[in-house]
Amino acid sequence: MKVKNIAVKSKSRTEFIDITSEIQKLIDNEGIKNGICFLFVPHTTAGITINEGADPSVQKDIQTLLTRLAPQDLNYLHREGNADAHIKSTIVGVDKFVFIEDGRLVLGTWQAIYFCEFDGPRHRRVVVKILSDD
Amino acid sequence: MKVKNIAVKSKSRTEFIDITSEIQKLIDNEGIKNGICFLFVPHTTAGITINEGADPSVQKDIQTLLTRLAPQDLNYLHREGNADAHIKSTIVGVDKFVFIEDGRLVLGTWQAIYFCEFDGPRHRRVVVKILSDD
Amino acid sequence: MKVKNIAVKSKSRTEFIDITSEIQKLIDNEGIKNGICFLFVPHTTAGITINEGADPSVQKDIQTLLTRLAPQDLNYLHREGNADAHIKSTIVGVDKFVFIEDGRLVLGTWQAIYFCEFDGPRHRRVVVKILSDD
Repeated sequence: MKVKNIAVKSKSRTEFIDITSEIQKLIDNEGIKNGICFLFVPHTTAGITINEGADPSVQKDIQTLLTRLAPQDLNYLHREGNADAHIKSTIVGVDKFVFIEDGRLVLGTWQAIYFCEFDGPRHRRVVVKILSDD
Repeated sequence: MKVKNIAVKSKSRTEFIDITSEIQKLIDNEGIKNGICFLFVPHTTAGITINEGADPSVQKDIQTLLTRLAPQDLNYLHREGNADAHIKSTIVGVDKFVFIEDGRLVLGTWQAIYFCEFDGPRHRRVVVKILSDD
Repeated sequence: MKVKNIAVKSKSRTEFIDITSEIQKLIDNEGIKNGICFLFVPHTTAGITINEGADPSVQKDIQTLLTRLAPQDLNYLHREGNADAHIKSTIVGVDKFVFIEDGRLVLGTWQAIYFCEFDGPRHRRVVVKILSDD
């Protein structure tokens, strides 16, 4: 299939947005039974991660710790005030894949897929491409 | 091929387990000559990395440094005592791919594939899917 | 296609080298129209990331921050003086994929693909494999 875009709208500077059900919906719409779903974030101050979907405090802890590692106000060379967001993007990464079996994303019990905003609020997107086995 | 599971059993809270030969065995059994091997960890307090396989002190140094970055006893919101493990999982990542050529994993001289346990000991698994060129 | 190697030559201990145009050239030469380009770094003291390609100070900030997180002179077990480089490799990662549409890499406006040297200067390589839709 051709690549598809999923629109994401963040409301804070730092925010994790659960996109699992949107991606599952896309798989349903495409009628994919088995394959691999590839996800790519075309931004340099955002990322994508797969982590705990049950307790929302986990995503908060991850965000807080990343800010501890890369504070916004260090003496950065980049003068746009978002060097920290670029760094978090490289640490977390912008690409991720998930298997598809019997029409469902193959995720662990506690896993959810998160778009990671590090320099919001902004209109963002996730680019998706699915390789089908069939 | 359908996804396969590789069972992993960790014995410590933090531990890197070399799964390279297990994955090579799977490729042998499937008779794959050329393609890509995709590896996915369906857990939120574990990860997967590819790093030095010769000197075991490297994996210890990585574990120690990650604990320095995300200590277990910070003032986390998540109350299960393993917020640090979730954070390490996001930093290291849960998905990884390796090429296959002439029936062998395409790894550098010093590279080995490690399952990264951050909240063991536990019974874990790695989900594997291989795309064959043929 | 079979895997191809892109040669990379670093000149400093820590350095990000923009390999976007080299990869685009490979796609042009192979005549790939639509698919996925998989990139793999077969080294344990280097990595690959996708980040800002416009302002060179961003890559400097990322390098500086990573060194702040993993300084070269900590009390590491690994005695070769490059434990920090191994750690950075695991944090940044050694595998990355980018979609191809209409013969072009699908990157965001500001994105460039960087080989990340953490223990140079050295002769390095990036292994590339492209899955074509056609």
